This record gives sequence, C-alpha cells and structure tokens, in this order.
Amino acid sequence: MRLAVIPGDGIGPEVVSEALKVLGEVVPETEITHYDLGATRWHNTGELLPESVLDELRQQDGILLGAVGDPSVPSGILERGLLLRLRFELDHHVNLRPARLYPGVQSPVADPGEIDMVVVREGTEGPYAGNGGLLRKDTPHEIATEVSLNTAFGVERVVRDAFARAAARPRKHLTMVHKTNVLTHAGSLWSRVVEEVSLEHPDVTVAYQHVDATTIHMVTDPSRFDVVVTDNLFGDIITDLAGAVTGGIGRAASGNIDATHRNPGMFEPVHGSAPDIAGQGVADPTAAVLSVALLLDHVGRTEAARRVEASVAFDLATRDHSAPGATHAIGDRLAALVSSREVAQQV
Amino acid sequence: MRLAVIPGDGIGPEVVSEALKVLGEVVPETEITHYDLGATRWHNTGELLPESVLDELRQQDGILLGAVGDPSVPSGILERGLLLRLRFELDHHVNLRPARLYPGVQSPVADPGEIDMVVVREGTEGPYAGNGGLLRKDTPHEIATEVSLNTAFGVERVVRDAFARAAARPRKHLTMVHKTNVLTHAGSLWSRVVEEVSLEHPDVTVAYQHVDATTIHMVTDPSRFDVVVTDNLFGDIITDLAGAVTGGIGRAASGNIDATHRNPGMFEPVHGSAPDIAGQGVADPTAAVLSVALLLDHVGRTEAARRVEASVAFDLATRDHSAPGATHAIGDRLAALVSSREVAQQV
Ligand SMILES: CC(C)[C@H](C(=O)O)[C@@H](O)C(=O)O
Ligand SMILES: CC(C)[C@H](C(=O)O)[C@@H](O)C(=O)O
Repeated sequence: MRLAVIPGDGIGPEVVSEALKVLGEVVPETEITHYDLGATRWHNTGELLPESVLDELRQQDGILLGAVGDPSVPSGILERGLLLRLRFELDHHVNLRPARLYPGVQSPVADPGEIDMVVVREGTEGPYAGNGGLLRKDTPHEIATEVSLNTAFGVERVVRDAFARAAARPRKHLTMVHKTNVLTHAGSLWSRVVEEVSLEHPDVTVAYQHVDATTIHMVTDPSRFDVVVTDNLFGDIITDLAGAVTGGIGRAASGNIDATHRNPGMFEPVHGSAPDIAGQGVADPTAAVLSVALLLDHVGRTEAARRVEASVAFDLATRDHSAPGATHAIGDRLAALVSSREVAQQV
Repeated sequence: MRLAVIPGDGIGPEVVSEALKVLGEVVPETEITHYDLGATRWHNTGELLPESVLDELRQQDGILLGAVGDPSVPSGILERGLLLRLRFELDHHVNLRPARLYPGVQSPVADPGEIDMVVVREGTEGPYAGNGGLLRKDTPHEIATEVSLNTAFGVERVVRDAFARAAARPRKHLTMVHKTNVLTHAGSLWSRVVEEVSLEHPDVTVAYQHVDATTIHMVTDPSRFDVVVTDNLFGDIITDLAGAVTGGIGRAASGNIDATHRNPGMFEPVHGSAPDIAGQGVADPTAAVLSVALLLDHVGRTEAARRVEASVAFDLATRDHSAPGATHAIGDRLAALVSSREVAQQV
C-alpha cells in the first residue's frame, strides 16, 4: 500500500506519527511518502497545493491527514486552498463520519444510551462549492452571496452510498437530515433522490429530520440514529455535535472517499489543529488512529481495520480517562494492542 | 395594547390560549384579534397570508403566534408562505432567542453549569432569502441552488442590536457564530461588520466561533455563552440545540423583532406544532408564556414582563417535573402566580 501522509499543522504531526506507529504494526509493508503541506509551507513559499503534489497524491492508495489550520493564516486560506481543494479535486463525495460511544467513555450527555451511528456527509458540493462573492465591498451597499450548488448526480451518488451502508448494518435505518421546509429547492432534490433510491432498498427504513431538530435528538436521544445522510454543511455541523456527544472530538475519525475508487481516499480526524495544545505531546491520537482503521477498510484490509478498531475499543474501556497519558504513550499502547492476544480474540 | 393572535396549527391553539390567560392577568386591557391562519385555512381556501390580513397585522402593537405546520401540508408551504413571509414582510431582522437553564430544570447535559444566553439570530436574509431554484427538474442533470444573501445593511443592524444587548448585560460578552473558513464571502462581511461595530463598544468582549465548534461547546461548556450573534440558518440550528440543553424546547421562547419599531414584533415558541400530541391537552405552554414576556419587554411593559418571567421561574423551580400537569393546569398555575405575593416580591 502506498500512503501519502500530510501531517499538517498544530497537533497534526503529533497525532499522525502515533497513527503511523499503529499502522506499522498491522501493515508493515506500507510505503509512506510525507508531504509538507499546511501553514509553514504557505508562509515560506506561498504554496498551498502545487499541481505536481496533487498529481503525486493521485497516484497513492490513500492519504492520511493530521490537521490543517493555524491562527497565523487568515481564515479560509488553508481550508479552501488545501483541505477543501483536496476533497474537491479528489472527488471525495462521501465524507464518512462514524460516531460511536465506546464502553468506558463518558458522554457529556446524561443519558446517551448506546450510540453507534455513521454520518454520510456529502463532500463535493452544497454550500461548500465556493460559489459566491462580494459586491460593493466595504461600502454600506455591500452584498455577500454564498451559493449552495446541489446536483442530481452529486446527491444521488452519496445517497446511494448511504443506503448501501444502511443495508449492511443490523438496524438498516437511514435518516436524511436537511432543512427542506426552508431550503425548498435543494430540499426538494434531496427528498426526491432519497425517495427514489429507497425503492431499491425496501429493507431499509427511512426517516427524515430537519437539521435543527436533529441537534435536539443528538443530545436527548442520540441512539435513534443509525446511518445519517446529509449535505456538506449540515454534515459538518452535526458530526461535530455527534463527536462531542460520543465523548469528545478527540475520538472522531473521518474518511473522505471517492466511492468509485478512482481517486485515493483521504482520512483525517474530525478535530482541528488545536494550536493551543500543539507541541506539548498531550493531544489524543485516537481519532487519527481510528482514521487509519477507516483507511484500511476503504482499501479492503478489513481484518487489519478491525484490529485497529478493537485496539482502540480495548484501550478506551481500560483507560484511566482522568489521566489518559501522553500522545506517544497512547500511541505505544495502541501499537502494542493491535498485535496482542486480547485484540486477536475479538477480531 | 392591540395584539394579533395567530394560534396556528397543532398544539399552537392550546399553548396560545394559556399564554393569553397569563397575559390577561398582567395586561387585562389588551385588545385581542384572532387570525385563523395556518393549515386549515390553506386547505379550505388556498390562502396563506392574504394582503388584507397582512395590512391589519401591520396596525397591531404585537403578534402572538402559536405554531405553524401540519403533516397534511407539503413541507415549505406554510413555512415559506406564512411564517417566513410574516418575518420578512414585517422586517423582523432581530430574531431574539434567550436560552436559560432555570433552577429546578434538568438539562440533558450532565454538567451544564449556569446557562443564561441570548441568541440574536438574523431574521430577514442569509440562506432564508428564498433565492434559488431548480434547473432540469426530474432529469439526471438537475441542479438545485440556494443562495444565501447577506447585505452590509442587514448584517450591521442585527450586529448593532446584539452589541447593545451585550453591553446591557452583566457579562458584556458577544460571540459571533459563523463558518468564515468555508463561507468566506458571507464570513468576511460578517467579520468586518462585527469588528467595526465592536469599536463603538470597547466594554464588550468579542469572541468568534465556527458553528460546528459551537455545537460542541453547547454540550460541553454552554455557560461560556452570553450574547451570540449569528446568521439566519446557523441561528435556527444552534437555538434548537440551546433549547434542548436548557431542558427542552418546551420552554424556549422567541421574538421576531423590527428593532426600528416600524412593524409589530411577532412572538412565538421555538417549538413547532407537534402534531403527535396536538389536541390532547398535554403540551407545555411555558414557551408560549415566555414569548408573552418577550412581547411585553418589546412594547415597553418591562414590569409586566418581569412578572411573567418570575412566574415561570417560580413554577419551574417548584414543579414536579415528572408530572408537570395538563396544558391548562400549567396555564392556571402561571396565571395565579403572576398576581401572587411570591412573584411581586421578586420583581
Ligand atoms: C476545516 C473545515 C474546512 C472543515 C469543514 O468544514 O469541512 C472541518 O470543520 C471538518 O469538519 O472537516
Ligand atoms: C418552521 C421553520 C421555518 C422555522 C425556521 O427555520 O426559522 C423554525 O425552525 C424556527 O426556528 O422558528
């Protein structure tokens, strides 16, 4: 497996190096190439994502990204110019974000029940399309627009992916999240596509929920969700909330996937670069490690994926959560666990 | 005071009638006109908001609305044609949504701390502008757009209102919530306006938070928020969450306000029409009653507003939350409380 690694900014490099430690145990033959993209490169060279780098990334089997973003860079530059550019150029239309409350992990919600959901967030269109602009900037008559672009092509492929995932899970339940009562045009397209694709999946129960109501259920009854399919922006919002409700964004992994496998997937923690704790060796690398599990799943190394996941589950169940240990200590524990008997028995 | 009442659909009529009971105690001289807008009228006549009704509403001092929405009406018809039309026609640019965790009320969040925030949600533009459309409908090449329209005029007036509210509160803290790193055009306008207006309020501390991160803090550290200013869609989402975190949307009130006082304000619970429990007399009218308090505040009846609020606070502190009583019983209790000695002492 050829893997591109983009450690990125802030805690990115720290958590990525632990994730690679774990990966090294399960797939030692991985060929790794590091790419120094992010704030430092931008400051030094003005480059965000050179074409030549993009071409090289396209040749890989997968990409592992730490985190992107730094307070020294104006908001939007790295996000739009690097992170979102990668997602769009590599046609990552399925932004996969599982949220599971692992045994031993405390939820900030008093009565969470069992949470095991997967949010399938559209990743290449919607309000993220970058379509919009400013007119009469810096005058009292300024207008700013943001255009959400939604295509039958784009919605259908992500909805199909979500249905397939729902059909493969025990509960076979799919919730579409949108705001169809206000965003009536995009909402109409999304609703019709979900209805059409549902005809091919009579075994999957379909529900709809407005995004605002979804945030309520995330804190009052999160166990109701199985697979959730939603647009790029709503997915961004509810997956941070789902991460929080399952015990913290430090454990939320994500995959940016081209479901046709024409482009390599990019796997990254949902958390950001956390500049406030960067360089201190205290960041929790668990989300990065779980992102490796998603990567392994995507490239068909299912057994290795299960081992990584089981290691995390075991560690979380037995961890002293008041003193989880330093970044590298957690990485060491997980690296030891993936080859251990405890984990082998569970897989 | 001339008050228009739109009971609306579902539990709307039930909760409104209790709210009027309470209002009758504090401002008995209110002249009330009922308007039968909502699902039934639409089914019977095809009318949503006739011009003549709109003209009459403009002449009132305030509007009290129960809830709008019914499963028998296609999504978006009543929302866009009635509720949002009212907000837009009456230039309700300040959508005011306090969220307070009252003593005695249980939050679904394990460790909420003291929550007392006010979300100032923009109410007349953003993604709610209704600008967008469908191209090549029902073909594989369909495109749906939604255009978020943001004007310097519109953003400035709501930001000014939010700063004034923050300056009048003990903590004097304002958080702007947006997604400036992705919605860079609208985000740039919002950020510049907040920066400019902040110069006039050196006493107000200003913070910024992405909407996704905001949902995390709403469940892990909600007490950090004092006044929040945000766009129409983000405000919709985070106020449902804030309502849930403060013990349930059954207690969340809102005011749709034209800060110039040229048009009457419209006051309504944040909750919807809840058709599943409509007609059973079990809906909690507290949000409707608290909406009356916001109405009274807006029309300058401050002392009456404080009495209504204190009645709710007293009732919530002493209520048996496992058996809060029927809709009318809660209304009766609150109506008795507003004129009581306990409440008089607190105001
Ligand atoms: C950093 C930002 C552009 C990104 C997003 O909005 O998608 C992040 O919040 C995420 O969820 O991966
Ligand atoms: C019913 C709907 C149009 C409305 C909104 O989105 O504003 C509601 O959710 C609210 O928050 O008042």
